Amino acid sequence: MIVEILCVGNELLSGITLNSNAHWLAGQIAAAGGTLKRVTVVGDDLVEISTAVRESLARKPDILITTGGLGATYDDLTLEGVAQALGVRTVLDERAVEMLRKSYAVRKLNYELTNERLKMARIPEGSTPIQNLLGSAPAVLVQAGNTKIFCLQGVPSEMKAIFEEKVLPLIKEGVGPFVAKEVNYNVRGVAEAMIAPALLRIVGSHPRNSIYLKTHPHGYYRKKTPQIRIQVISRGSDSKEVRKRLDAIAKVIEKEVAALGGRILRR
Amino acid sequence: MIVEILCVGNELLSGITLNSNAHWLAGQIAAAGGTLKRVTVVGDDLVEISTAVRESLARKPDILITTGGLGATYDDLTLEGVAQALGVRTVLDERAVEMLRKSYAVRKLNYELTNERLKMARIPEGSTPIQNLLGSAPAVLVQAGNTKIFCLQGVPSEMKAIFEEKVLPLIKEGVGPFVAKEVNYNVRGVAEAMIAPALLRIVGSHPRNSIYLKTHPHGYYRKKTPQIRIQVISRGSDSKEVRKRLDAIAKVIEKEVAALGGRILRR
Repeated sequence: MIVEILCVGNELLSGITLNSNAHWLAGQIAAAGGTLKRVTVVGDDLVEISTAVRESLARKPDILITTGGLGATYDDLTLEGVAQALGVRTVLDERAVEMLRKSYAVRKLNYELTNERLKMARIPEGSTPIQNLLGSAPAVLVQAGNTKIFCLQGVPSEMKAIFEEKVLPLIKEGVGPFVAKEVNYNVRGVAEAMIAPALLRIVGSHPRNSIYLKTHPHGYYRKKTPQIRIQVISRGSDSKEVRKRLDAIAKVIEKEVAALGGRILRR
Repeated sequence: MIVEILCVGNELLSGITLNSNAHWLAGQIAAAGGTLKRVTVVGDDLVEISTAVRESLARKPDILITTGGLGATYDDLTLEGVAQALGVRTVLDERAVEMLRKSYAVRKLNYELTNERLKMARIPEGSTPIQNLLGSAPAVLVQAGNTKIFCLQGVPSEMKAIFEEKVLPLIKEGVGPFVAKEVNYNVRGVAEAMIAPALLRIVGSHPRNSIYLKTHPHGYYRKKTPQIRIQVISRGSDSKEVRKRLDAIAKVIEKEVAALGGRILRR
């Protein structure tokens, strides 16, 4: 399951808002065994949004998740941008209008359906609205070739609820059985460059995507002795296989660290 | 000054690392008056990196900043990716080798220049290495047409130091005199959709990019009364003009909020 994320919002490009949505989504996708290939952030600009959607669709991900830009204000342009990318119009969708009514009723808000509010029910022709009970604007599912575009809210609580309800099950279904196990080695006396050849050999000896191997420099002990963390993640459909790979890698790392004169502080 | 950011690193796509680099850079660029148009995140993959660089160059930003992927390990592929995007080779650069030596000497590290370490001095043909005194890998400046590509480190302290030293002055010089002032209105009794038409009118009556106007929903007071924050940023080269715009907008917002039956809690 190849996934892309497109985050829409000037506040993300001006340093006002930290993109915690992309971070949360990335963790969820990885935990489910999906492959997040790219995150793109653009501003509240129709051309920027539609261009980014078109580019993403050309890469044919299974799922494209957009966040933000579904609200009632002038700068909420995601649905219009998606529609332009697909060459369709946006239309006032009766189901989406009903969802708006319901979300107001649930929260006991006595709101009139003004033009601004109805804007949230204008969705790309042929797409499907998704009820949002934590806020107003419905999410939208747009089928574009083999790609499912999920347009989710920018408000984290609303985005997360709909991701968990509609997107996550789809990723899990596409991936099938999936286990990931992780081990970290805190190593003293070995610099990244020293262990690099060994890591390259380990990565080369396992199927692509079955392991994730990365060193993180952790500064120096008493200013002279390098410290690193070696992170190993083993992934796959079979729990035993995943564990076996992790054990095999452990042996190689222990041997290499010792040979380089280093020491594993704790696992 | 149009700027793009390309962040490279599997850890950003697997939810392990929060992309605080992009957030920090975005804030710096905005404060200097630059325009960040897009942030892209790709994994440690040669094709992904070179494709993303090529796409960015086609959009002709003044500056493209990359973060990450400059280190000594097998998955540090940014410079190779940039070289591929430009159709040039990477070459062992004598100035970069000297910088490596110096960065080790400064930190009193008695390191041999092994092949893995020399990898950090292999930079795209025709590019310029930039001394990194907080870590090992030099940063690199690559001129591609009218775009300056700055390849910065992924380690935040190293990235920030070189951004402040080399990139920020360039943005400031390109932008010229620049002031930004911000006012926030916490409003009770007005929902986003209610104030939307007024905001659209305000935005339409000022030059593009001179103001930034956004509403942030802040939930409900006693479950029934909507609360929002209206954020206004005025930007420009002349301090008086910037202040004047802010005052003019203040009057409109105060009038509109009152007309809608709302109340400004505090400015």
